[in-house]
Amino acid sequence: MVDGHDLHVSVEEFESMFESVKTWGRWGEDDQRGCLNYITGQHVADAASLVHSGATVSLSLPLNTAAGPDNPKPVNHFMTMLADTDIGSDPLRFACDYVGMEFHGDAHSHIDALCHVIYKGKLHNGAAAESVRSSGAEVESIDVASAGIVSRGVLLDIPRLRGVPWLEPGESVFTDELLAAEQAQGVRLRQGYVLYLRTGHHRRRLELGPWDAAVAKAGLHASAMQLLYDRRIAAFGADGDGDAVPNRCDAVVYPIHVLGVNAMGLHFLDSLQFEDLAAACESHQRWEFMTVIAPLRLDRGTGSPVNPIAIF
Amino acid sequence: MVDGHDLHVSVEEFESMFESVKTWGRWGEDDQRGCLNYITGQHVADAASLVHSGATVSLSLPLNTAAGPDNPKPVNHFMTMLADTDIGSDPLRFACDYVGMEFHGDAHSHIDALCHVIYKGKLHNGAAAESVRSSGAEVESIDVASAGIVSRGVLLDIPRLRGVPWLEPGESVFTDELLAAEQAQGVRLRQGYVLYLRTGHHRRRLELGPWDAAVAKAGLHASAMQLLYDRRIAAFGADGDGDAVPNRCDAVVYPIHVLGVNAMGLHFLDSLQFEDLAAACESHQRWEFMTVIAPLRLDRGTGSPVNPIAIF
Amino acid sequence: MVDGHDLHVSVEEFESMFESVKTWGRWGEDDQRGCLNYITGQHVADAASLVHSGATVSLSLPLNTAAGPDNPKPVNHFMTMLADTDIGSDPLRFACDYVGMEFHGDAHSHIDALCHVIYKGKLHNGAAAESVRSSGAEVESIDVASAGIVSRGVLLDIPRLRGVPWLEPGESVFTDELLAAEQAQGVRLRQGYVLYLRTGHHRRRLELGPWDAAVAKAGLHASAMQLLYDRRIAAFGADGDGDAVPNRCDAVVYPIHVLGVNAMGLHFLDSLQFEDLAAACESHQRWEFMTVIAPLRLDRGTGSPVNPIAIF
Amino acid sequence: MVDGHDLHVSVEEFESMFESVKTWGRWGEDDQRGCLNYITGQHVADAASLVHSGATVSLSLPLNTAAGPDNPKPVNHFMTMLADTDIGSDPLRFACDYVGMEFHGDAHSHIDALCHVIYKGKLHNGAAAESVRSSGAEVESIDVASAGIVSRGVLLDIPRLRGVPWLEPGESVFTDELLAAEQAQGVRLRQGYVLYLRTGHHRRRLELGPWDAAVAKAGLHASAMQLLYDRRIAAFGADGDGDAVPNRCDAVVYPIHVLGVNAMGLHFLDSLQFEDLAAACESHQRWEFMTVIAPLRLDRGTGSPVNPIAIF
Repeated sequence: MVDGHDLHVSVEEFESMFESVKTWGRWGEDDQRGCLNYITGQHVADAASLVHSGATVSLSLPLNTAAGPDNPKPVNHFMTMLADTDIGSDPLRFACDYVGMEFHGDAHSHIDALCHVIYKGKLHNGAAAESVRSSGAEVESIDVASAGIVSRGVLLDIPRLRGVPWLEPGESVFTDELLAAEQAQGVRLRQGYVLYLRTGHHRRRLELGPWDAAVAKAGLHASAMQLLYDRRIAAFGADGDGDAVPNRCDAVVYPIHVLGVNAMGLHFLDSLQFEDLAAACESHQRWEFMTVIAPLRLDRGTGSPVNPIAIF
Repeated sequence: MVDGHDLHVSVEEFESMFESVKTWGRWGEDDQRGCLNYITGQHVADAASLVHSGATVSLSLPLNTAAGPDNPKPVNHFMTMLADTDIGSDPLRFACDYVGMEFHGDAHSHIDALCHVIYKGKLHNGAAAESVRSSGAEVESIDVASAGIVSRGVLLDIPRLRGVPWLEPGESVFTDELLAAEQAQGVRLRQGYVLYLRTGHHRRRLELGPWDAAVAKAGLHASAMQLLYDRRIAAFGADGDGDAVPNRCDAVVYPIHVLGVNAMGLHFLDSLQFEDLAAACESHQRWEFMTVIAPLRLDRGTGSPVNPIAIF
Repeated sequence: MVDGHDLHVSVEEFESMFESVKTWGRWGEDDQRGCLNYITGQHVADAASLVHSGATVSLSLPLNTAAGPDNPKPVNHFMTMLADTDIGSDPLRFACDYVGMEFHGDAHSHIDALCHVIYKGKLHNGAAAESVRSSGAEVESIDVASAGIVSRGVLLDIPRLRGVPWLEPGESVFTDELLAAEQAQGVRLRQGYVLYLRTGHHRRRLELGPWDAAVAKAGLHASAMQLLYDRRIAAFGADGDGDAVPNRCDAVVYPIHVLGVNAMGLHFLDSLQFEDLAAACESHQRWEFMTVIAPLRLDRGTGSPVNPIAIF
Repeated sequence: MVDGHDLHVSVEEFESMFESVKTWGRWGEDDQRGCLNYITGQHVADAASLVHSGATVSLSLPLNTAAGPDNPKPVNHFMTMLADTDIGSDPLRFACDYVGMEFHGDAHSHIDALCHVIYKGKLHNGAAAESVRSSGAEVESIDVASAGIVSRGVLLDIPRLRGVPWLEPGESVFTDELLAAEQAQGVRLRQGYVLYLRTGHHRRRLELGPWDAAVAKAGLHASAMQLLYDRRIAAFGADGDGDAVPNRCDAVVYPIHVLGVNAMGLHFLDSLQFEDLAAACESHQRWEFMTVIAPLRLDRGTGSPVNPIAIF
């Protein structure tokens, strides 16, 4: 028990949560978009109506080429051409580069396609695990979001609510704190919105340096996913990746990903940074904004590196 | 002479054009953002006010992993984990991948940072060519656009103006056609807008198959850059890459890139596809829209793969 | 019928060939080295005794970074550091690079590990196909050859036998020509030897330019594998990759790989070049030599790029 | 002073050492092979005459895909095809992979081309630093060793001499220990030989785990290079990379590389492992053997990953 909350989740409780937030079949047997279906044109237009100052903010980390405790797979960034190369038109030279990355993990801001999370041999909506093959994902790839995810973004800032600079790795956020943050910030999650959950992960990293986030990070308690389901949010982004690690869920190590991506059909945005966003929210005294997420068109991909933008 | 236009540009004429559209120093000696400075918060808010239907469209090609006549550097896309891998939490499995690419060239939708184009040993604004090093770009990297490029996008559709499905490779577009397209479509380029120029490159590719676009593509004639300068546009995207190839400019093989990126400080978006956009414009009977360009945060990069979004 | 040979191989004939050359279980149920077991220390010492002039020759193609008809997956070669980078010890600078490749296919000289070829759900020696996973090969990886393959190499030069510069793509080599080449060159394949089969593939490429070797190349007829089995060779290398493509085998498109790698347990070396070797053999008037094959230690790999050496 | 040796090397002393071991011009102004010129056919034949038992040993580490203190640039190894992919010939499937790496550094066994080390703006033999460009090395690339380096290898085992399991990081080896090791092992370095210097680096790593070898490793003292020069060795390999780090040389941080690669024209083999080799030497009671080094044919490369083989 922590602050009146029971951290432990038994296998039975987890299975019950899974059934409770499951959307399989809701948008048809062949649907591959999951909660993105919640976004209508009206939601997009409403989001645009939030734009007043025109300030824009990145929610992405810079691509990290340096291996470290939370970056076992550093980005490959190589210059492929410099001014030393005559291209046959002499006063003109080009500078070019190569960038490559395994974008999942804890170091690189990215979006998870629905095919990223396999649970009991199934993808979201019941697709077979085997539909993600060595040649790529045949269903539920990030291609479903190729035209961008555009909606109202809402930042729930838990460290702000608690009056701390950041949550410590391993700490869990329960539903009551989400509700309290809504109230404190004067926002309310509704259908089609994109929820950005700030735990202060990146703030801590900036101040204390990197740690192995694969074994310790703050995030949601499994029980909190019911609220995200009830409110019909369209996508979910976190510094960290949404999951509290370690957790006391007996069923799986990443219950939030299983409930969110697999059961609900929610696209996750992992390893974001909200330091610029939090500052912009404070200065605008507004914790909602237009957000635009534009994944690369990796049509058999399990996600994409991404630079989500908030527009005020 | 083609239709009353002289295609030939002498070295002297080119140098004169260069001086005429040069913005070096306009935003300070140390400025690295060039024409992005034209975008104010007001432009962003105005762009958002264009959003009504909420329809969103991608202006990017799918990432192309297959080598071909216009794709000598295919994207590396590899699955790094499949459902066959026990991650130590048995009912849960992850599917992951690696993506890598040399994004410049004619196959991959990308943005050119200002440091991409070196002319006579200088980058835009007079920075030394040597500031782009084997370790990456120290100035004018794509990092200057890390918070996204958000503004009003305008599509000028030249094949539509001409009543043809596409321009043939090598054809040039002059100022008069840009003006005529404005008039035909009821739009006008103004400060801070993003110009998307459709030559039908991708339509031709879809119907006739790929060709070596490095040696033949439709684009602007050098003389047309004066209009882009006068109108103070903020960024410029094309199917193809803006340059007519081959051209009859004696000075350089890619005059549009030299005038646009190097002299003017204009970020270019190359190898876009406007087939979905053109259809959306027709159906909305509107050739302007909010556009959001969100490059990856490659902080020493000469650009980034990118998926620009149009929002109606 | 071509020159008295029936090119057609029925499914039944192929299955019979498969059984006839199958070595599964010969070196134990858990063996992963296949025909490499044929090489004893005595074979290595005998091979060394062939060295007289000390001339050494590469049997590898240069790594090919240019996409082309036979190179859909060009090598990634990028400079990662140049003399422009101060490493903190000023008069000293380093030049460094990155090299990456998908080494299988028709463009890059490489060795096939036994796990590369799966037939009817089994690897050589009956291992399950599933033992090659997204995380790499758990059995029969190229790691079994980590200490090198060192033995007597024999070049059988079929164009020399026929008095032509090269075999045309699609042509098949039958057993009688292997025997005739042995006789013409004064060599005899014996246990533990490495057979290099020259079809003149690379000579043709040098003179006529590249073609799509995936659809047309000269190689062995399926019936010729019996001789390789009978003679107990240890490894097999070819310009091309050993298989005649297309062929008239009803069972599979690459019968030589199935019979050789899967049934026999023979490591294949594909896409070699023998132009330097053929010249060296002529000048020494000797078609056998010491050969050393040193794969990279890619311990879960399905093979490796490799530069086999012949020593005279 | 350590054991009567002065560790400190002044700038003047270093420059004097540089001049003393410099071979520039010895093999012609345009020579790119440096000390490889010392190997004649007779040396190759003599090396082969050492082969008796036929035992072969790898001197390479396995390719390391896991980031760690001494591996900031882990190898990219990805499976590109598995048995899940129908290639259009159904009972047959292929398993394929991609391997990519920045091979320099302290984690991956590799060979340094002569162009790897730039000192005062010059490569070995006086070539300009600018001849190594963003498009690759135009001179002194590893291509000069494309036919392999084959000669007599000699292991000098310093921990064996000292009666310790390994040298501690930072410890230096002086000429007298090289001479003592020769005597203890009954070998003598002569023209054209390949010197392998064991410091026990890998043994220490196996027993104590990895450390940041970029800042601490055992190796030669600068003064010891005179012996390598006098004896006219052809190539030099080390666990570690030959340099003692840190050292007390005022001129540069890696004096051994500058003296060896740049002044002498000696190809270095870095980050080897000699544990298998040391055991083989003990069991054969012989510290010399035939060695074959077969770099990949990276014709503009600054080196290559490599798996050197010792044959007894």
